[in-house]
Amino acid sequence: MQSLVEAIKREGRVLPGGFLKVDGLVNHQLHPALTREMGETFARHFAPLAPTKVLTIEVSGIAPAIMTAAELGVPMVYARKKKPLTMSEQVYTAQSVSRTKGGTVDLFVSSEYLGPQDRVVVIDDFLASGGTLRSLSQIIADSGATLLGLGCVIEKEFEGGRQHLADLNVPIHTLANIVRMSEEEGIVVQAGR
Amino acid sequence: MQSLVEAIKREGRVLPGGFLKVDGLVNHQLHPALTREMGETFARHFAPLAPTKVLTIEVSGIAPAIMTAAELGVPMVYARKKKPLTMSEQVYTAQSVSRTKGGTVDLFVSSEYLGPQDRVVVIDDFLASGGTLRSLSQIIADSGATLLGLGCVIEKEFEGGRQHLADLNVPIHTLANIVRMSEEEGIVVQAGR
Repeated sequence: MQSLVEAIKREGRVLPGGFLKVDGLVNHQLHPALTREMGETFARHFAPLAPTKVLTIEVSGIAPAIMTAAELGVPMVYARKKKPLTMSEQVYTAQSVSRTKGGTVDLFVSSEYLGPQDRVVVIDDFLASGGTLRSLSQIIADSGATLLGLGCVIEKEFEGGRQHLADLNVPIHTLANIVRMSEEEGIVVQAGR
Repeated sequence: MQSLVEAIKREGRVLPGGFLKVDGLVNHQLHPALTREMGETFARHFAPLAPTKVLTIEVSGIAPAIMTAAELGVPMVYARKKKPLTMSEQVYTAQSVSRTKGGTVDLFVSSEYLGPQDRVVVIDDFLASGGTLRSLSQIIADSGATLLGLGCVIEKEFEGGRQHLADLNVPIHTLANIVRMSEEEGIVVQAGR
């Protein structure tokens, strides 16, 4: 997605400690036209697989996921990181590691909204080491649903997530790929794949 | 928004303790067509005020807010409940109370994405007692931006938020209004105002 690649080149920063800062594009401020184009691009890619549901995870996956679901015309479900009082008793859970905030988080998806009849595309903001996506794939497996594919807005290929998730044996599609980055050199980014 | 009113009548539940359960519409699963109609309705209402930004709060405000921003053609910013490592030093903060999860939460908005030049519409999932919206209005005031109006998907009029926020002196628009609800009687819901 060339518009995203250009936006990352324009606005992306590398912070001390090697953290990628794209707060103005993905994690705090969002540009609706860019976010809608993310949804359109993912939908074009995954529509042939006939998904019935888009699954993501709070927080930064919600915007690209709702846009993807809107293009596909299917409901979107987002895994919660705390079990709200209103969530049903029967839930699917998994643990996920959060690099930007540190520590592990528990993920919750209610059996009311995910089950064996579902053909699921997972959408999230980053493909880094693949831990979060692994957790979501576990939840899908536990629910009896079928995982069709993984869509991530930004891939950081040097963190190896694509290889770590190869055993899932589903297509992984990303919109921008960060080949490498450093405070000195900045961000080397290309179109995703 | 009649389609939302019908959906609440169809799917809404009242849980022991008086909690409204609309997880399948707003807080866990989302229907994109319904969410897009929320955005269209809010945009029709607030466009004449010439907003430059939509502000919401993670988590459940993000989907209706990005759809509203898409219709208005302006960026959307969502207040974070934890300060990510990537957020700038200069931030605007406020505290908000979460009834469904209990306790207070801190809200963070970076000065990078909100400032005196901004004319802001706040969008969120609920108008209950008005505490969360009060916190967001405080952040807007601290940033020097102008608050134009408040849009909430579901109003629970019996919690008095509209009256509690009257001193803000801005239009409050809601898409569905819950007049009263109880486990015995169920949910009495009408169009918002």
